[in-house]
Amino acid sequence: GPVSTIVRELRCMCLTTTQGIHPRMITKVQVIAAGPQCSKVEVVATLKNKKEVCLDPKTPVMKKVIQKILDSGRKTD
Amino acid sequence: GPVSTIVRELRCMCLTTTQGIHPRMITKVQVIAAGPQCSKVEVVATLKNKKEVCLDPKTPVMKKVIQKILDSGRKTD
Repeated sequence: GPVSTIVRELRCMCLTTTQGIHPRMITKVQVIAAGPQCSKVEVVATLKNKKEVCLDPKTPVMKKVIQKILDSGRKTD
Repeated sequence: GPVSTIVRELRCMCLTTTQGIHPRMITKVQVIAAGPQCSKVEVVATLKNKKEVCLDPKTPVMKKVIQKILDSGRKTD
C-alpha cells in the first residue's frame, strides 16, 4: 500500500497493488504521473473505510473505476 | 481553485474550474467522489508548477486527461 504522507513526494508510493476493489468503495482516486519521484504512474485509491490502497494503472478496470466515479456526480445535478 | 488542505475534508474543494490545461502540465489528478463533504464529484489537478487547479469532471476532455496520464507510464516499462 501507499507509504506515509511525510515521504510521499520523495519516492514511489506504491510497493504493491490491490485488486478487486469495487468502485463504490472508493471515495477518492489519485493518479500520479511518472516523474523524478517515481518512474512509474501510480494510482492511489482512498476507500470509504479511510484506508488507502494502490491500484494497478495498467489494468483496463482502472478506466472503468475512474469513469464510474466521474459519472457518479451526474446523478446529483 | 481548491481551498487549503486544512479544510479539505469538510466541504467542496472546487469553487471554480479551469479549462485548457494541457495533460503534459499535470503531475497528479485527484478524483474525489461525491459524498457528505460535497454533493458533486470534484477533480483537482496538481500542475508541474506546483499549483493546484480544479477541472470540470463533466467534460469529455477529462477522460482523455486521465487516460494520457495512465498511458504515460507505459513508456517507462
